[in-house]
Amino acid sequence: MIKTGVSVFSYDNIRAVEWEESRLKLVDQRVLPSRIKNLFFDEVGDVANAISDMVVRGAPAIGITAAYGVVLAARDRFNSDGVNWKKTIGKDLDLLKASRPTAVNLAWAVDKLAQIIAGLDPANDPEPALLEVATQIHADDIAANHKMGQLGAGLIAPASGVLTHCNTGALATGGYGTALGVIRAGYASGAITDVYADETRPWLQGARLTAWELVQENIPVTLIADGAAAFLMKQGKVQWVIVGSDRIAANGDVANKIGTYSAAVAARHHGVKFMVVAPASTVDMACASGADIPIETRGQEELLVCGDQCVAPDGANAWNPVFDVTPAELVDAIVTERGVVENPTAEKMAEMMAN
Amino acid sequence: MIKTGVSVFSYDNIRAVEWEESRLKLVDQRVLPSRIKNLFFDEVGDVANAISDMVVRGAPAIGITAAYGVVLAARDRFNSDGVNWKKTIGKDLDLLKASRPTAVNLAWAVDKLAQIIAGLDPANDPEPALLEVATQIHADDIAANHKMGQLGAGLIAPASGVLTHCNTGALATGGYGTALGVIRAGYASGAITDVYADETRPWLQGARLTAWELVQENIPVTLIADGAAAFLMKQGKVQWVIVGSDRIAANGDVANKIGTYSAAVAARHHGVKFMVVAPASTVDMACASGADIPIETRGQEELLVCGDQCVAPDGANAWNPVFDVTPAELVDAIVTERGVVENPTAEKMAEMMAN
Repeated sequence: MIKTGVSVFSYDNIRAVEWEESRLKLVDQRVLPSRIKNLFFDEVGDVANAISDMVVRGAPAIGITAAYGVVLAARDRFNSDGVNWKKTIGKDLDLLKASRPTAVNLAWAVDKLAQIIAGLDPANDPEPALLEVATQIHADDIAANHKMGQLGAGLIAPASGVLTHCNTGALATGGYGTALGVIRAGYASGAITDVYADETRPWLQGARLTAWELVQENIPVTLIADGAAAFLMKQGKVQWVIVGSDRIAANGDVANKIGTYSAAVAARHHGVKFMVVAPASTVDMACASGADIPIETRGQEELLVCGDQCVAPDGANAWNPVFDVTPAELVDAIVTERGVVENPTAEKMAEMMAN
Repeated sequence: MIKTGVSVFSYDNIRAVEWEESRLKLVDQRVLPSRIKNLFFDEVGDVANAISDMVVRGAPAIGITAAYGVVLAARDRFNSDGVNWKKTIGKDLDLLKASRPTAVNLAWAVDKLAQIIAGLDPANDPEPALLEVATQIHADDIAANHKMGQLGAGLIAPASGVLTHCNTGALATGGYGTALGVIRAGYASGAITDVYADETRPWLQGARLTAWELVQENIPVTLIADGAAAFLMKQGKVQWVIVGSDRIAANGDVANKIGTYSAAVAARHHGVKFMVVAPASTVDMACASGADIPIETRGQEELLVCGDQCVAPDGANAWNPVFDVTPAELVDAIVTERGVVENPTAEKMAEMMAN
């Protein structure tokens, strides 16, 4: 069943975050799949809003976007005050870091650029040096995704069915994707023959983004309601659930899109394996366990309104935590570009991160 | 915490199926909660379409609707051919029975009316006799719901939180509801203080119908995405999951709205109790187990389109089973008007049905 003549890096034709003509370009993910609309950014405030408003989403993509946002901030601050810009830019860095709370990659990228800034001579234009680092973060992310694709696909027996949740593809990263990168690589190698995607309420990232990406790449995909995942597993249709992560604690607990924990519980009940795929920058060794990860709660309207239609009556409340925590004991494998950790524990995670 | 001075039958102010001025009146559940629109039916073909198209849904409500549909069919057949009407009506009964496959109450009600028809003198107008039986089925359903409300609420410790799935209320029954009847009774008695409702994709019965009913009755309700149920349980917010059923097999396996099985798996994982509430007419002793229950698959567009908006790209497939089967071993209690069966088995189910 293993295909030959297909590179593991086939199916890599989508980029959602790009630096183009000295500006940041983002594909507006709020209007996919009905429209492909590019937005261009010159100002860090607009970049922070784009992150909060989910023009761009997905932990790695947010980190890369924020890195380019720091480049834009430095350009503005240096041009308006060539003496004190290293002080005034602090506000911009804080703004970026506050734009979404759960993904650790965002703070990781901003802190990395802040370190570079600290070492710069304030008299010189900071843009070239910062752009080089931001571009490197972006390139490293794509390379990490390719690596994780190979590592993750290597865990999957030929001709398997897999289920994924949310969107963890090119749209959620610098390119290629984390969990969806493993699915791309596994489909290329023949390890994966059937891809199911949870539609992922309330934001429908599975329907709107994952299905769109896979259709673009000519990888067949079958959407299901989130509530149908357990019934799908019961029928033996999937051997792996493969998801991304917004933050992984030092003990291997995994924060990811709401619904991930439900899929993990159902997977364990059915003997289906559960794989988490995320770059090492997602691992937050300062978080001892999932209990320490801040979980973003977004507006009730994401549940009360669907499209332009009010789907719930006035007077109904909604609880809209947009992430949940899957404990390490429900995770069969964590895949980063540094390697695979099976049955994660604090010891194994520390060992992998020390590599 | 137990309230006094509140009848267990408070919160009973909604009827969605009624016989009014010699016609069947249905509240069109497709346009709730944004509009309350009544539709009137004189012809059995329109009634069958109303069931297929989900103007009316919910296993008991479908059964009652079909019973009134038989009354309309008999009136027409008798008026157009006073001699052979008992033969020609067979087509109408088949049409009604075929309008939705999973709910057994539909066939149960039609068969009950067919038995009455078999005993009628064909020379007499059948409408009064059949209307009497249909009205009795309707009244019996409401009485059964009141009884189940008391029995089910009696299982719940004071000040509990509960989660329900889909809509099992007045809109899904002759009135008051099955699982939602237990919630009404439990809220009235103080057994239940917090009600959470899964939004229930793809048709959003939880958001559109359950939340609407509870808001009408001034019972506070919090909607969640279906995928958030496990995370809610993890936080200790609910002590019971309470659902209805479209068909219960002789061994206690339960067919119900897609997503029910996922909630049952999560409930067991967290030590949350799982209660199924349905009239005895839902129990199909001819089905040995859940494997024998036909599961309706509806159109892909229910997942690919949300409201008027296309949420998935052209080229994506969807799998849309609208029911699933929860095995008896995940069920803590089945409540019918004949009594409560804890930890259901074929023996216990047979004993309850023999009562």
